[in-house]
Amino acid sequence: MTDVAVIGLGSMGYGMAASLLRAGCRVWGADVVPAQVERLRAEGGQPGPVPAADLDAVVVVVLNAAQTEAALFGADGIAPRLRTGAVVIGCATVAPDFARAMEARCAERGLLYLDAPISGGSVKAASGALSVMASGTPQAFAAARPVLDATAAKVFELGDAAGAGSAMKAVNQLLAGVHIAAMAEAITFGISQGVTPEAFLAVIPQCAGASWMLENRAPHVASGDYTPHSAVDIWPKDLGIVLDIARAAKFSAPLTAAALQQFLAASGSGLGREDDAAVAKVYARNAGLTLPGDP
Amino acid sequence: MTDVAVIGLGSMGYGMAASLLRAGCRVWGADVVPAQVERLRAEGGQPGPVPAADLDAVVVVVLNAAQTEAALFGADGIAPRLRTGAVVIGCATVAPDFARAMEARCAERGLLYLDAPISGGSVKAASGALSVMASGTPQAFAAARPVLDATAAKVFELGDAAGAGSAMKAVNQLLAGVHIAAMAEAITFGISQGVTPEAFLAVIPQCAGASWMLENRAPHVASGDYTPHSAVDIWPKDLGIVLDIARAAKFSAPLTAAALQQFLAASGSGLGREDDAAVAKVYARNAGLTLPGDP
Repeated sequence: MTDVAVIGLGSMGYGMAASLLRAGCRVWGADVVPAQVERLRAEGGQPGPVPAADLDAVVVVVLNAAQTEAALFGADGIAPRLRTGAVVIGCATVAPDFARAMEARCAERGLLYLDAPISGGSVKAASGALSVMASGTPQAFAAARPVLDATAAKVFELGDAAGAGSAMKAVNQLLAGVHIAAMAEAITFGISQGVTPEAFLAVIPQCAGASWMLENRAPHVASGDYTPHSAVDIWPKDLGIVLDIARAAKFSAPLTAAALQQFLAASGSGLGREDDAAVAKVYARNAGLTLPGDP
Repeated sequence: MTDVAVIGLGSMGYGMAASLLRAGCRVWGADVVPAQVERLRAEGGQPGPVPAADLDAVVVVVLNAAQTEAALFGADGIAPRLRTGAVVIGCATVAPDFARAMEARCAERGLLYLDAPISGGSVKAASGALSVMASGTPQAFAAARPVLDATAAKVFELGDAAGAGSAMKAVNQLLAGVHIAAMAEAITFGISQGVTPEAFLAVIPQCAGASWMLENRAPHVASGDYTPHSAVDIWPKDLGIVLDIARAAKFSAPLTAAALQQFLAASGSGLGREDDAAVAKVYARNAGLTLPGDP
């Protein structure tokens, strides 16, 4: 029996907690939204406060580095109350240096740390089929294994120290964000040339212009359905992390910078909570074009 | 028996001519490089000058609109000598307006025109397995059918007038060019963060950051082999066409513009004839990074 706390019960964290319940773990949840904690209890989570000293693992599935640090080492941070040998699994998208710092601060307290950013979206989180880009000591991997087995379809083991997992996640987010913006740029450019979104979808996924993100997101534009599977506001955050890391390394990333500006324009014009495919609305508005679903 | 002339015997045109020979057509070739014409004759092409008045089809596989117009309507252009009902198949990447103009000028002379830009690269050209993004009248499609059957694995039929094929090709080239530059940006950003090209290749193609171009081109960077399958210099041309069309439509395309600048920097620094994956060298040089194969 593995005792696990999941800190952060958003769409990703809640899905991971539910997967851990299905795998037979005892699971405690924590979130700033009490209703999410109650919902997890109603679906089989443990009652009562998180028993920090008895936990085998803490999964931190919050939005960013600041929330991760607060959850672990803030005023009510859980790290000082964990038992020696417990593993902290850090799932937020953060800078590699931050992941290394968390590993070091955990090690000072006799805790293991797995740098384990996740990929795959809320549907795969709910079904226990995430991809995890993980790095950490062999001891951290061993202690995290029950959690990884319950939540991930694919675990990329990227090295024996924190940082490598977050570096690979940053590389993936650079591409994913650029590819969503490129899809939006291309599908709206097509409309300006008389290429309907339906024709775009029928042809481009079979051609050299295909990408995973295009195949996943272009149907949202074609159907005019911007129900948020992954929200616009993810990208100012994640591409911001990429560009912060890149600037520190004096790495010039012009496509990432251009994509970030488009997502910022989407967020700034009130589309932040819509599906990230809504960045297409920025392009359409700027060119005076009509998209499917427009009034 | 179909009598066909192929104008332009570069890697794409030569492959199409060879595919037409295999399909049993009588094929004449024309190129500014006499050795290419001789090579085609040696492999089964017809001897002697192109018998314009007897041809069923002319396939124009040159670099751009200016060469297409010269081949058809220039001082030695073939169009005025073709018989009524012959079909001109325009394969270069051109603006939709140019394709419409060619269709109209051909129609004035009783000629059919198929707007038929091609995709797939030289290997698929040689094996008769190209993708064709085609539009034109039903009569043009019917007359072009033996050529399409011999050269293409996939023909997208995009409408009954020239322009739609070229519009879809421009959309595809926008994405393909942006995705190559994004691959280069991501793989070199990864190097700056300690992610080796081998680790990149092992992980990213299985994640949300995948694209067709990434899977095709990233191995060139990882192996340090820039033998040109498709050259850097294609992209200043094709993304230039995209941005010309976009400007005419008052369409803002910031990712395409950023990608074009990276390909221009590659071409301007002497990499124009290398494989287009060599745009990664611009990123590496700008960040002081070493790529596989660097001395």
